[in-house]
Amino acid sequence: MSVPGEIVLHVGPARAAWWQRRLSELLPGTPVRLWDAVPDPAAVTAAVVWKHPPGGLRRFPALRVIVSIGAGVDHVLADPDLPPGVPLLRITGEDLTQRMTEYVVWQVLALHRRGWELAAARAAREWRQIVTPVAGRRGVGIMGLGRLGGAAARALAGLGFRVHGWARTPRDIPGVTCHAGAGELDAFLAAAEILVCLLPLTPATEGILNLDLFARLPRGAALVNAARGGHLVEEDLIPALDQGLLCRAVLDVARIEPLPTDHPFWADPRIDITPHVASLIDPDTGARLIAENLRRFFAGEKLSDLIDPARGY
Amino acid sequence: MSVPGEIVLHVGPARAAWWQRRLSELLPGTPVRLWDAVPDPAAVTAAVVWKHPPGGLRRFPALRVIVSIGAGVDHVLADPDLPPGVPLLRITGEDLTQRMTEYVVWQVLALHRRGWELAAARAAREWRQIVTPVAGRRGVGIMGLGRLGGAAARALAGLGFRVHGWARTPRDIPGVTCHAGAGELDAFLAAAEILVCLLPLTPATEGILNLDLFARLPRGAALVNAARGGHLVEEDLIPALDQGLLCRAVLDVARIEPLPTDHPFWADPRIDITPHVASLIDPDTGARLIAENLRRFFAGEKLSDLIDPARGY
Repeated sequence: MSVPGEIVLHVGPARAAWWQRRLSELLPGTPVRLWDAVPDPAAVTAAVVWKHPPGGLRRFPALRVIVSIGAGVDHVLADPDLPPGVPLLRITGEDLTQRMTEYVVWQVLALHRRGWELAAARAAREWRQIVTPVAGRRGVGIMGLGRLGGAAARALAGLGFRVHGWARTPRDIPGVTCHAGAGELDAFLAAAEILVCLLPLTPATEGILNLDLFARLPRGAALVNAARGGHLVEEDLIPALDQGLLCRAVLDVARIEPLPTDHPFWADPRIDITPHVASLIDPDTGARLIAENLRRFFAGEKLSDLIDPARGY
Repeated sequence: MSVPGEIVLHVGPARAAWWQRRLSELLPGTPVRLWDAVPDPAAVTAAVVWKHPPGGLRRFPALRVIVSIGAGVDHVLADPDLPPGVPLLRITGEDLTQRMTEYVVWQVLALHRRGWELAAARAAREWRQIVTPVAGRRGVGIMGLGRLGGAAARALAGLGFRVHGWARTPRDIPGVTCHAGAGELDAFLAAAEILVCLLPLTPATEGILNLDLFARLPRGAALVNAARGGHLVEEDLIPALDQGLLCRAVLDVARIEPLPTDHPFWADPRIDITPHVASLIDPDTGARLIAENLRRFFAGEKLSDLIDPARGY
């Protein structure tokens, strides 16, 4: 299969050649150009991007579609000078959802079973038992009940946790107590001994994880942020740990990635850091999903991964 | 409620007074005696024990039932001089099953996502991404498909893993490929990239986790032993890691517990050790289950936790 015109690609330098080759294989006949090597900007009809330079997409007068490499599109919408009216697609699908569910269930179980205390005892060569409540007595709160949050909530409920969910609009997920909107946020937070952020990053959710919110959780709650670094007011995290509002945080994302080597989070043993791997799609699967989305877009077929620019997700 | 006669209790010294008081509350009117303070051995009708001294139960001529504090009864059956014909009960129930499922799912996810590499990178303050296959491409093998193994297998299948199970006799668990008996062990092992032992400890399973078995797993497999220390030939583990047959082991149990401070496992960073907490029932729940089992036993009601001494579980 092929698509009309040419594709321009923006992705980190380590992976650019791989993506160029793979998309060319998947869309034979369609030239795939690297960002800085586009012979004819007017021939470009599709852009496949991860964190492209702001304003850069205005170079392509015939651009008909933008595809985000990833489930989040905040890195695209962060560009204040996007070409107006060009549809934006993301990668979703079973694979990303499955990976995120694995990560969230893993981290929630580790926090629930106080894995960090067991790890410290093992490192000190100490045999020190800890009794924890069963999952049915542990409240877990999932912020964001889209594809990723909904799947994680269902998986945790299936394992017996007392799961609460929070989203902008009302949802109905069997086994999950769903709360909606600002008016029900306090009730949600009060139940979340382990809080998991899987919200999209939008102007409404930027900085939502802050000292004020942490103070409304059960005292000594644990935090997992597997969404975007922009959700967390980073200056508030260590104070929240110091004040005992939180006992522990697991961050898969940061405002600046990779997390700078002098960032205070690295020095704090109460903060676990994973390098944005919660739902790291393998490139081959990602490339196949993108090629299929481009084919469907240009064929005028139905697309489930189209972004609503007004909502931002 | 009460039971006829008196109860003798053998449990670690740190918890003996607690158990004595709690069982007395739950079975008002029934004296509960500590092991070394039984005024009238002939009055004892029930023994509630964890690792009692061999032969010690012969002191009680009127003993009608023995209750194991725990799901495993190997610590009782290890006594070569048990009073003959006295029924043996164990603790099971939802609570122990739930805890074991949590532990197994947690450890399997951590191994699947290569958590030890992420932890090492975090400790070194390095942002180092790892792509792992999705659960649907990961084979997990569960040895033992009783209450604990069956529940763990179902939970892992529910999360999308390719789950294989092995038991002495044929089983049928939806979503799980079940293998039975010695003749199907090789096929089971060949599929187990992550091998979880949840077998009962019997003469037939003692030492089953050995170098010969590890060599039949996919090369570089990971091991979780959440059953009994006696399942593992401890001398074989470090050679199996050195030879690359295994990449990693998680042990919740050991031949001698607590694991002696000079045991070579402590010094090996490829071996994770948790202090027999996989399914550590909280004492209150355990005491309630034991009191209920005793009441049912003396009332002649049906018991699901009765041990078949010929099988050993």
